[in-house]
Amino acid sequence: MKIAVLAGGVGGAKFLRGLRHHLSIIHPDGDGGHTDEVSAIVNTGDDVWLTGLKVCPDLDSIMYSLAGANDEVRGWGRAGESERVSAELTAFGVGWPWFTLGDLDLGTHIARSHFLREGLRLTEATERIQSRWPSIGVRLLPVTDADVPTFVSVTDEGVDTQIHFEEWWVKHRAAIPTRGFVQRGVESASITPEARTAILDADVVLIAPSNPVVSIGTTLGIPGVREAVAETRAPVVGVSPIIDGSAVRGMAAACLTTIGVGVTAEAVGLHYGARTNGGILDAWLVDSTDAGAVPALHGAGIRSRPVPLWMNDDEVSGVLAATALKTARELGV
Amino acid sequence: MKIAVLAGGVGGAKFLRGLRHHLSIIHPDGDGGHTDEVSAIVNTGDDVWLTGLKVCPDLDSIMYSLAGANDEVRGWGRAGESERVSAELTAFGVGWPWFTLGDLDLGTHIARSHFLREGLRLTEATERIQSRWPSIGVRLLPVTDADVPTFVSVTDEGVDTQIHFEEWWVKHRAAIPTRGFVQRGVESASITPEARTAILDADVVLIAPSNPVVSIGTTLGIPGVREAVAETRAPVVGVSPIIDGSAVRGMAAACLTTIGVGVTAEAVGLHYGARTNGGILDAWLVDSTDAGAVPALHGAGIRSRPVPLWMNDDEVSGVLAATALKTARELGV
Repeated sequence: MKIAVLAGGVGGAKFLRGLRHHLSIIHPDGDGGHTDEVSAIVNTGDDVWLTGLKVCPDLDSIMYSLAGANDEVRGWGRAGESERVSAELTAFGVGWPWFTLGDLDLGTHIARSHFLREGLRLTEATERIQSRWPSIGVRLLPVTDADVPTFVSVTDEGVDTQIHFEEWWVKHRAAIPTRGFVQRGVESASITPEARTAILDADVVLIAPSNPVVSIGTTLGIPGVREAVAETRAPVVGVSPIIDGSAVRGMAAACLTTIGVGVTAEAVGLHYGARTNGGILDAWLVDSTDAGAVPALHGAGIRSRPVPLWMNDDEVSGVLAATALKTARELGV
Repeated sequence: MKIAVLAGGVGGAKFLRGLRHHLSIIHPDGDGGHTDEVSAIVNTGDDVWLTGLKVCPDLDSIMYSLAGANDEVRGWGRAGESERVSAELTAFGVGWPWFTLGDLDLGTHIARSHFLREGLRLTEATERIQSRWPSIGVRLLPVTDADVPTFVSVTDEGVDTQIHFEEWWVKHRAAIPTRGFVQRGVESASITPEARTAILDADVVLIAPSNPVVSIGTTLGIPGVREAVAETRAPVVGVSPIIDGSAVRGMAAACLTTIGVGVTAEAVGLHYGARTNGGILDAWLVDSTDAGAVPALHGAGIRSRPVPLWMNDDEVSGVLAATALKTARELGV
C-alpha cells in the first residue's frame, strides 16, 4: 500500500511514528514482511537561511524523531545536544541569539547547505541526509524545492512589519499582535515532482494533525498541492490537531485566530473543506471529546468519526493511524 | 611606531605575541602608554572553502593565539575544543574526515562565511571577527581578499594530480612525491589596500619566521606585495625559520626541498634576497647556531646577525622581536 502523509513538525512526526509502528515497517518480522511505502510530504514554510545555513525545522523534527535521534524530553532537536557553536556565533554577534542551534543539529544544516550549494535540490539533499539513518522507513519529501519562507505581519512595538515565522514563533512565542501570514516566493514555487507523484500514486492520503495554518496551510499553499490532492484517486483522511476545543500545540490557536478560523475540530475540518466541494478532505477524524462536531462535518460532505486522538506513544499513535487507514478503506481503497 | 609583519600561522603567531609583549601593547601600564601600531599581513594560501565554510587557518591561528584562546598543548586550534559537529559531518559523508574542525573553531568559520556572503571583503570580515577579542592588540590583515588557494602538484598512487595544500599537509603529512606549488587565482588577485598601506606607511617591516614557501612565499606571490615591500621607506628585517640547519616546523623542509632551496638559514635568506638586488630583505636574523651563514649573506647585500631564535615563550619571543626592531633602527629608522 502506498501512503502519502501531509505533515508538519512535531504532530507530523508523532503521527508518522505511529503509522510506521502500525505498518511494522521497521520490524518486518512483525507481519512477515511488508510492501507498504510511506511518503511524508513535509512543510517547508518554517525553513530559514540563517548565517548561511539552511535550517528546515519540520523536515529535521520528523527525521530525528523517526531516526530515534530526537530529544524526547525537550520535545525538539537532537538527543544529547550541546550548544557550543551557537555560543560562539552569539559572541561574534551573528545569527539569532534566541534561536539556538545545537551542535549535532548544526551538522545537519551544514551538510544540507553544502549539498544545496553543490546544486542538489532540497529533495535530493534531504534524501542524502536521511540516508544516514536507514531505519527511518519513511521517505521524507519537502513539498517544494523552492524557498517559501512564511513571514508574519505583525505590529511590533507599535510598528507594522513582517518578521520571519521563526522570529514570531520562537522569539515572540506568537504573542504579539498579528495580522496575517505571507509565504514569500510562493507564486513562483511549485510542488516537487516527487511529492506530486507521491500524492497521485497513493492508495491513501493522510493529513497529519499538524498546525492547520503554518504547516498544512502553507503546504497546501504551494502551487500544485491542492491540485494533486483534488486529482488523486486515493481517499483523503485528515486527523484533527484540535482536541476538546484546544490546540494540542498551544500556539497553533494563535495561528487559527489570526486567519479567523475557530479553534475547534469542526471549524478546522470545515476550513479544510470537503473534497467534493473544492476542499481537501474525504474524512476527518476528531477526538472523542469533539464528537459533537460530527453532524456538522457530515452535513458539509466530510465523513467524520470521533476517536481518541492523543498520541501518547507509538502504540497509541499506531492505533490512530490504523483507524485513519480503516476509514480510508471504508471510503473505497 | 608602525610595524607591519608578514606572517604565516604558528611561527607568525609566536613572533607577534613576542612583539606585542615587547611593545607592552596589551599592558600599557608597562611602558606608561604606547602609540605603536602592529599590522599582521597574513598568508591566505592555506584557506579553503569546506562544506560551504571559509576556513582561514593562518588568520585563525594568529587570532586565537593573540586572543589567548588557542590550545597551547596541541599547538593549534581553540583551547577546550570539542568535535561534535565534525563527527556529524563525517556521518553525513561530507567534508574531509582527516581535517577535523572543532566546534568552537566552526563558530569562527560560520561567522566569517556569513559575513563574506553578506558582501564583506575578507579584510572586513576579519576585522569583525577579531573585534570579539579587543585585547588582541594587532590588526589582522589578510594579504588579499581574493581566493588564492595553494595547490600542490603531487604524484598520488602513481597518478600526477593537484591537491589542495591542506590535503597535502594534513592528510599526507607532506610525505608524498611532490613536484611544486600552484596558487590558483593568483593572476587576478591583488594585495588589499589595507595591507599595501600598512607596508608603505610602516616604520619597520618584519618577516616572521614562517614557512618561506607556503606562508611567506605565497604572500609574496600576491600581485602588489613585492612591489610594496620594494617601495616602502621602512627597513625590512626577516627572521629565519631555520634553526641549526632544520626547519623549526618539520614539514617546512619538504616545501623548501620541493622548490629547490636548501634547508639552511643561509639558503632561505638568499632565496628571499637583498632588497638592494630585487629581493625583500635588508636584514636577516639567523640563529646563533647558524652564525656561519652571516658572511655569505653580507656578501649578498643582506645584513645578518646571529641571535637565539627559539621562541619558547612570550618573554623570549619578545627579546627576539626587540632585536629585530633594534636591527631595523640601526638600518635607519
